Amino acid sequence: MFLARVIGSVVSTKKDETMTGRKLLLLRPMFPDEANPAALKPGGNTIVAVDALGAGAGDLVLFCQGSSARMATGMKPLPIDAAVVGLVDTVEVLGKKAT
Amino acid sequence: MFLARVIGSVVSTKKDETMTGRKLLLLRPMFPDEANPAALKPGGNTIVAVDALGAGAGDLVLFCQGSSARMATGMKPLPIDAAVVGLVDTVEVLGKKAT
Amino acid sequence: MFLARVIGSVVSTKKDETMTGRKLLLLRPMFPDEANPAALKPGGNTIVAVDALGAGAGDLVLFCQGSSARMATGMKPLPIDAAVVGLVDTVEVLGKKAT
Amino acid sequence: MFLARVIGSVVSTKKDETMTGRKLLLLRPMFPDEANPAALKPGGNTIVAVDALGAGAGDLVLFCQGSSARMATGMKPLPIDAAVVGLVDTVEVLGKKAT
Amino acid sequence: MFLARVIGSVVSTKKDETMTGRKLLLLRPMFPDEANPAALKPGGNTIVAVDALGAGAGDLVLFCQGSSARMATGMKPLPIDAAVVGLVDTVEVLGKKAT
Repeated sequence: MFLARVIGSVVSTKKDETMTGRKLLLLRPMFPDEANPAALKPGGNTIVAVDALGAGAGDLVLFCQGSSARMATGMKPLPIDAAVVGLVDTVEVLGKKAT
Repeated sequence: MFLARVIGSVVSTKKDETMTGRKLLLLRPMFPDEANPAALKPGGNTIVAVDALGAGAGDLVLFCQGSSARMATGMKPLPIDAAVVGLVDTVEVLGKKAT
Repeated sequence: MFLARVIGSVVSTKKDETMTGRKLLLLRPMFPDEANPAALKPGGNTIVAVDALGAGAGDLVLFCQGSSARMATGMKPLPIDAAVVGLVDTVEVLGKKAT
Repeated sequence: MFLARVIGSVVSTKKDETMTGRKLLLLRPMFPDEANPAALKPGGNTIVAVDALGAGAGDLVLFCQGSSARMATGMKPLPIDAAVVGLVDTVEVLGKKAT
Repeated sequence: MFLARVIGSVVSTKKDETMTGRKLLLLRPMFPDEANPAALKPGGNTIVAVDALGAGAGDLVLFCQGSSARMATGMKPLPIDAAVVGLVDTVEVLGKKAT
């Protein structure tokens, strides 16, 4: 899994019928940095993930990719390759809290 | 999933028999950019995806990759690793519409 | 899926028994380029894919990766992560033929 | 699989219910280098993996990704795409121990 | 699949119980190069793969990744995402042997 910040959302009316009513979030992956353990660095590419945990703009989340995204609760029949699987409380890097 | 612009198409007459009649689209991945939330930036690599939603040249779409592509309606037996799963109405980045 | 040019082949006598008799092709991924829609650009990494469609040196093909490669006709039990799934007739980028 | 050093951990209270009680480790991938076989080089991106082997900060581990992460003992129903599958005793590169 | 040179090995005593007795090889991916068809170029990242074919240091092998690694003979229940599936006899690039 990777850490990510929720930076936006996507609306798609015409989509695969199994995805009706699903919330699509835009995620910016965030990476810990041992050289500066107190801060997370943004990654290069954004990802669109389905969310069933109620994440909102600015939240730090944990997401998984690939077939494992369909293992998130209620997602089995969906053609999705990314899902939010946790809201992050704390990240600890080399013994320090990172935000 | 990722956002992408439809930039073309591929025709293949001799292909795996399960793919007969399938439309193959060329997709250019597009990425939101917090530094300029109103515009999407093109990614480096193009992808060929199967489409069952009627996407056309210039459309902004949502596509998924890997085994999840086979979860798109009607795609189960196909040897495909990318499928269009939604036509995008709006993308919102940091509270602004991106196009 | 991605487009690729067949640039060579691999011979392996001692291999997983399920792969006996399979043809292994070396593929160079090829990418459309909106800045020059009439030409395809070569990608950085080559891939070894199983072929059951009779592709030969110089052919432009479509290949898929991951578990989907095993969905190609006759490939189910093979430990392969890439398969040729189509021979490409034409690629159209922004309304122009690309070769 | 890849080698990685445990550099921290992630706490997530609100997460997919199947993940309750699971330990989430931050991993820095580490790569052997033939030019300097005695040392491992850190990779660019960190990964969050589930651990069931008791790995701790500073440990060198082996992790797997994708659907295979769910094959780790007890992980089948979890929406995870990375798991620690071994604690590493020794790495040998070109006949030399690497650390 | 990709080509790779065996450059070392990994020993892990405490590992997922299904992996007991498995040989873990360090692989350096190798890529053909049309500009110099007689030589293979090393890739950037090393990979740890399970081997059941008896590959040794210096051997050129073919490996597969992802869920397909578990399709290698005897690997079904293992949490592995890379396996050696062939020992390479010859690689031909643009009609020339590459080594």
